[in-house]
Amino acid sequence: MSTRYFGDIEPVSYEGADSTNPLAFRFYNPDEIVMGKRMEDHLRFAVCYWHNFVWPGLDPFGGQTFDRPWFGDTLDLAKQKADVAFDMFTLLRSPFYCFHDADVRPEGDSFAENTSNLNAIADYFEEKQAETGVKLLWGTANLFSHKRYMAGAATNPDPDVFAFAAATVKTCIDVTHRLGGENYVLWGGREGYETLLNTNIGQELDQMGRFLNMVVEYKHKIGFKGEILVEPKPQEPTKHQYDFDVSTVYGFLKRYGLEGEVKMNIEQGHAILAGHSFEHELATAAALGLLGSIDMNRNDYQSGWDTDQFPNNVPEMALAYYHILQAGGFTTGGTNFDAKLRRQSIEPDDLLIAHIGGMDCCARGLKAAAKMIEDGVLSGFVAERYSGWQGGEAQKMLNGDYSLEDIAAYVEQSEVNPEPKSGRQEYLENVVNRYV
Amino acid sequence: MSTRYFGDIEPVSYEGADSTNPLAFRFYNPDEIVMGKRMEDHLRFAVCYWHNFVWPGLDPFGGQTFDRPWFGDTLDLAKQKADVAFDMFTLLRSPFYCFHDADVRPEGDSFAENTSNLNAIADYFEEKQAETGVKLLWGTANLFSHKRYMAGAATNPDPDVFAFAAATVKTCIDVTHRLGGENYVLWGGREGYETLLNTNIGQELDQMGRFLNMVVEYKHKIGFKGEILVEPKPQEPTKHQYDFDVSTVYGFLKRYGLEGEVKMNIEQGHAILAGHSFEHELATAAALGLLGSIDMNRNDYQSGWDTDQFPNNVPEMALAYYHILQAGGFTTGGTNFDAKLRRQSIEPDDLLIAHIGGMDCCARGLKAAAKMIEDGVLSGFVAERYSGWQGGEAQKMLNGDYSLEDIAAYVEQSEVNPEPKSGRQEYLENVVNRYV
Amino acid sequence: MSTRYFGDIEPVSYEGADSTNPLAFRFYNPDEIVMGKRMEDHLRFAVCYWHNFVWPGLDPFGGQTFDRPWFGDTLDLAKQKADVAFDMFTLLRSPFYCFHDADVRPEGDSFAENTSNLNAIADYFEEKQAETGVKLLWGTANLFSHKRYMAGAATNPDPDVFAFAAATVKTCIDVTHRLGGENYVLWGGREGYETLLNTNIGQELDQMGRFLNMVVEYKHKIGFKGEILVEPKPQEPTKHQYDFDVSTVYGFLKRYGLEGEVKMNIEQGHAILAGHSFEHELATAAALGLLGSIDMNRNDYQSGWDTDQFPNNVPEMALAYYHILQAGGFTTGGTNFDAKLRRQSIEPDDLLIAHIGGMDCCARGLKAAAKMIEDGVLSGFVAERYSGWQGGEAQKMLNGDYSLEDIAAYVEQSEVNPEPKSGRQEYLENVVNRYV
Amino acid sequence: MSTRYFGDIEPVSYEGADSTNPLAFRFYNPDEIVMGKRMEDHLRFAVCYWHNFVWPGLDPFGGQTFDRPWFGDTLDLAKQKADVAFDMFTLLRSPFYCFHDADVRPEGDSFAENTSNLNAIADYFEEKQAETGVKLLWGTANLFSHKRYMAGAATNPDPDVFAFAAATVKTCIDVTHRLGGENYVLWGGREGYETLLNTNIGQELDQMGRFLNMVVEYKHKIGFKGEILVEPKPQEPTKHQYDFDVSTVYGFLKRYGLEGEVKMNIEQGHAILAGHSFEHELATAAALGLLGSIDMNRNDYQSGWDTDQFPNNVPEMALAYYHILQAGGFTTGGTNFDAKLRRQSIEPDDLLIAHIGGMDCCARGLKAAAKMIEDGVLSGFVAERYSGWQGGEAQKMLNGDYSLEDIAAYVEQSEVNPEPKSGRQEYLENVVNRYV
Repeated sequence: MSTRYFGDIEPVSYEGADSTNPLAFRFYNPDEIVMGKRMEDHLRFAVCYWHNFVWPGLDPFGGQTFDRPWFGDTLDLAKQKADVAFDMFTLLRSPFYCFHDADVRPEGDSFAENTSNLNAIADYFEEKQAETGVKLLWGTANLFSHKRYMAGAATNPDPDVFAFAAATVKTCIDVTHRLGGENYVLWGGREGYETLLNTNIGQELDQMGRFLNMVVEYKHKIGFKGEILVEPKPQEPTKHQYDFDVSTVYGFLKRYGLEGEVKMNIEQGHAILAGHSFEHELATAAALGLLGSIDMNRNDYQSGWDTDQFPNNVPEMALAYYHILQAGGFTTGGTNFDAKLRRQSIEPDDLLIAHIGGMDCCARGLKAAAKMIEDGVLSGFVAERYSGWQGGEAQKMLNGDYSLEDIAAYVEQSEVNPEPKSGRQEYLENVVNRYV
Repeated sequence: MSTRYFGDIEPVSYEGADSTNPLAFRFYNPDEIVMGKRMEDHLRFAVCYWHNFVWPGLDPFGGQTFDRPWFGDTLDLAKQKADVAFDMFTLLRSPFYCFHDADVRPEGDSFAENTSNLNAIADYFEEKQAETGVKLLWGTANLFSHKRYMAGAATNPDPDVFAFAAATVKTCIDVTHRLGGENYVLWGGREGYETLLNTNIGQELDQMGRFLNMVVEYKHKIGFKGEILVEPKPQEPTKHQYDFDVSTVYGFLKRYGLEGEVKMNIEQGHAILAGHSFEHELATAAALGLLGSIDMNRNDYQSGWDTDQFPNNVPEMALAYYHILQAGGFTTGGTNFDAKLRRQSIEPDDLLIAHIGGMDCCARGLKAAAKMIEDGVLSGFVAERYSGWQGGEAQKMLNGDYSLEDIAAYVEQSEVNPEPKSGRQEYLENVVNRYV
Repeated sequence: MSTRYFGDIEPVSYEGADSTNPLAFRFYNPDEIVMGKRMEDHLRFAVCYWHNFVWPGLDPFGGQTFDRPWFGDTLDLAKQKADVAFDMFTLLRSPFYCFHDADVRPEGDSFAENTSNLNAIADYFEEKQAETGVKLLWGTANLFSHKRYMAGAATNPDPDVFAFAAATVKTCIDVTHRLGGENYVLWGGREGYETLLNTNIGQELDQMGRFLNMVVEYKHKIGFKGEILVEPKPQEPTKHQYDFDVSTVYGFLKRYGLEGEVKMNIEQGHAILAGHSFEHELATAAALGLLGSIDMNRNDYQSGWDTDQFPNNVPEMALAYYHILQAGGFTTGGTNFDAKLRRQSIEPDDLLIAHIGGMDCCARGLKAAAKMIEDGVLSGFVAERYSGWQGGEAQKMLNGDYSLEDIAAYVEQSEVNPEPKSGRQEYLENVVNRYV
Repeated sequence: MSTRYFGDIEPVSYEGADSTNPLAFRFYNPDEIVMGKRMEDHLRFAVCYWHNFVWPGLDPFGGQTFDRPWFGDTLDLAKQKADVAFDMFTLLRSPFYCFHDADVRPEGDSFAENTSNLNAIADYFEEKQAETGVKLLWGTANLFSHKRYMAGAATNPDPDVFAFAAATVKTCIDVTHRLGGENYVLWGGREGYETLLNTNIGQELDQMGRFLNMVVEYKHKIGFKGEILVEPKPQEPTKHQYDFDVSTVYGFLKRYGLEGEVKMNIEQGHAILAGHSFEHELATAAALGLLGSIDMNRNDYQSGWDTDQFPNNVPEMALAYYHILQAGGFTTGGTNFDAKLRRQSIEPDDLLIAHIGGMDCCARGLKAAAKMIEDGVLSGFVAERYSGWQGGEAQKMLNGDYSLEDIAAYVEQSEVNPEPKSGRQEYLENVVNRYV
């Protein structure tokens, strides 16, 4: 039963590449088989709550541009918002959604009131999920917007804020568990600093390490089977965020004994802000065994803040899915659109059109990536390039059988003097362009 | 016995802040006591070989601008270069110097010839050190300039290049050990990639992990007491370098079992290129127990490459030394000027003037930092800000006595609802400005 | 008659460099004579309305942190706000202030209501100015926050928005004129685009050219003697802003016949975002005859958005004032602090402390700059460096007496083969460090 | 008569999109008609001399990687280089080439020797052009590599350097004219500064203005019909380059009376380094009537130096050609590949493969752009968006019939209160994705 917010329309259908219908898919065909699996089961799309249903179009220099009938801070409006949200998930044929607690419930005056409000909405979500078949990809707690978190949540100098945050996360994990969420995400938007002049990094890291350990312990205690995911970002709103990028979080997990318990939710825009390509972060996470889920969006390479645009550059997206597929594809994770309309896109159908474009680009990227893998055009080249390491002497060097002295002796005696070989970058770039 | 390259001048002396003599120190007064230690023993200055005696003034769009009589690739010229170098160390009263093998010896056609050339120069350096009292802060191997390393040294797809690099490092550690070097540095200038299309990150990390383990094993075997230091840099010349920053290297050391064996040589310019402030990298290394030595220079914040300028912004440098002093100061490490003249600064005395300015700025920064510490103006504020964590309940949260549920119960029962407190950033910035 | 918002305190007084009183000036001594002029008359400080009295502490990821009793949208609260504002101007001994219409009046539902509200506040400001002696450095119109301006004001595709903006600017010039404002500023925060896909650059530039011409015509008509100033910024909130930097605005003024009528209000943070140093923008404006006024603040070099921090790096600020003094100093312009507290600095006295620090740094910078000029240490070097251009042949080349052929003949016949001379950058940097 | 440097191969032919032959075109089909014109005549490809035949593979941290038999500084080797170059132009079916004087002739010890060497090579080029049919798109002088230019050419503090540069440009224009070059380009790689401390911006701009005026005067005098093109770049190698971007050069041309005489050669990588998209620079140049020619390449968005990679992102390239076609397409200009191999791409055929990929991407981009224009999908939307400006009142505002007061009266009387309209960015992005 539709809210009619988007007018009198049907769920978006696949019409093929030649369609010019702005409300049709040209590439996303949920049931199409790619590398032996349905496209929907590969991509596992999720629509996010915050950008679509909460953000009013503010930017640092301007006020509200979106008029949404559900804006306001009451339970009734929160349910009206949920109705439109599930409508939109359904219209887009999105199998999943994601939310922060603060996106979906009215803000209370206390922890108890927040909890009560969240539980009331969770009851409603249970109904909506049952009714629509839409599932929860992940839940999370907003530990950054309220002023109590202005100096951090887990890393706050005030232990009462740490406590408030910990209690809030417990509630959110409970709700995520109840709603069948497949993951629980932590983004530490304020877990960093504005200035080192007032900051004790070592103390704050220890707080954050303890916090995450508690989350993992609690997950096991209640039998939550989803993954715990950390989402890295280098800065903004803070000057520096501790979860800077995948490699930094890896070191953090090792330091606090959390390896094997926590994976990564990787966002394109955050990768860019950290000075990395998206595929770098994906490939690094894959190499370290940390690849969990992705927040798909696009950051303007030339704007130094989180622009959270809808993705539209298919060649880049193909390389992203290439690394995901190479790593075995998603298990509990998926493709969440952490993307927002430009604030000038004020029509209801802009919400649909933006997602349709993003989903289509993902589908094109996935198909190109799958074809590259099936053809082995890149992996074959790479395997050949490193093939020398399969040799016996090379294996001894790598396995620890040889010391520096052994190798020096070998180099001297065998007069090793290697000649460089072409890296063939332009050739490989041309090969990729055959697929995108 | 001077080469007279710099003319008929005396070693630079301290003349006090009012001096306008460009060849005098205004702040660097080696014997002055700062926090109970001679300034020279705090700062432990080193002059580098490469920028001063090897670089001809090239940039990507221009050729040689420096005329140095020792340019050329013979042993005789290498000794002439050493004569001028030790002259300059002496004139600047620099207690230390640093070098790569390729800076000091002619390039040979084979590993054996390189080794023989290096040993010949090391003999000469032994004499020069004895004669001048100048010591070696650290040695290192240049594993990035020769075309054999164009696709990496330890991370090369060709195991013969790995072998050549390993043999070279053995030689360089031997020479560093013989010359009494206090550290051995590895900068992985080509340990990264140009494109992921031809790269296997996991394989390359394993190669690099094995390589560094061999270095540590060899150090112990020969009884080298210095520290092994890794120098992070995010990119340039490569698109991505594995030793991106301090936090990334920390994770790498944990992954390959090297924690406790390896510390960090941190460069201002590399910190900037990684999107960090210099003091961020220093404070992070201190928090992780990895602070070893520094490469002092300055990167233009608005030029996206390694500008390696001489440092001159005292307020920033004071904060750098603040973190170094807070962490206990240097032990084996020191302040190496990895800084080069602008290529238009073609006069011999530009070399001296640039170092004098840099040394003076370091001395001013050190003195300001020491005074801030003695007055406790920042540390007192920070201690007070986190003082809540000394409380009994807070300690239980931090030590693992409390679970998420315990904390949630506490928050609910005690109606915890913390009020934010001012972070006082502007006040603290003003306080710092009282010292710089 | 104080509002007591800042407690029971006296106007800030100068106590000298050794003072540790956070509410005293250590360098800003209004009556001290610098290069023959009172320091107050050199610096011409202004406190801005928007960051101090309007901004609630929002950032893109967080809500209000400041509790100000005057927040709200009524005339009474607007007057209460004005009371505190003039209190603060007086406490800080700031001779000037600056405002946008939207900062000072309640937002109306129509142009007429906006005008009426603004006039009511202007009446009140007249009283406050008379009472306190504080003057208006410049007024301006906020043509970027309201949703009607989301696609631009002068450059909006809808001519009605252009009209609304033009009418608003007329009102704001009227009020600025009435209040004795010494300048009128235009910052085109939305005069740019989000995407070229929906944008006609040529059309928008023509609109903006016509708009600015009308402003100039109107200024002359009503006899406003102040300067019209354009404030450049490259981007944010838009992807691209037409008034990118000083050089771009220069071209725009030439294109639309406005040279000689309009000058520049240059902001440190905007310079940085455009890839320039602040002194570059100042020196360029001086060379082009466009230097008007400055917005003093500081942008984090490593955060790609407008951080609007209080300035605190004296060496950099000294170079900024060096260029201002070299160009003759301010006439109608001044030093406006377009700087905001960090959102964690929530105490009332943080407002005072931040400005005191900023004013002190400006004063230190000014004094250092004046001393450099009096000593002629930089200008003498520069004059000598270009002195060859005083020669007769050189003048002929520069004045147009010689053609390419004449010069080629001269080079060939005289066998001109110039040798490079040292640029002495490090020496000059050391010289500057004698003053800061 | 081939040099056989590339082996025993035939000129590259068009095989269609399904070809997997790395030495075939998949999209570039010279005789295919696009918008009524041959593809070759649209794109007007040029291969550059410097990256392909001169650069040895150096980067700031590494030495030569390319072994080219023609490396060396004799006339014989210069001719051997020319033989291979014209071979390559022919194999690639490139109708044009481009060069700097220093790329093609041995470096002499004097102006006279440089001139003589250049003329000797120009004789040889005349033969090669006649033999192959390859034409000169543009010539230029290298005024940045030799140490005499380290502080600038036209903007040097030493008038003798100005003279040497002017004489050199005269020679290069003569040779360009003789060879039938269609344009003459000036890139001011050293026309900027390293530090403002030793620089007089106003003086240097005047020198540069005079220099360019002499170039224009000389062009007319000798009857050169080609365009004079300035190529903007913001920085690198200098800290700041005066020809920062298109808008800056526009202002410069207006200042020195050169509007209408000089157009722009716009490079993708330089646009990126200036903080602009390539299409921004193209659209701006088109709006200002300055669009001349392009240097097609790709800058890594995340490397802050000039990476000069071969272009490969077709969606971005389609938007570039969209703006070129919208502006009427090239007349004297063309598509020069100012792109270089990665230094690991050391095989001769890497040179061919890289260009083939780049040419194919340009062809795909061109075809997509042409289709978008033929379908009117973007231009129709834009026209509609600004259609309000066709109205009578709007025209009066734009044409100067209305003053600020007139408009204010109109707004008040008509109660103008415009409602925002959706900018439809995501919709338009989806539309573009139908074409790429």
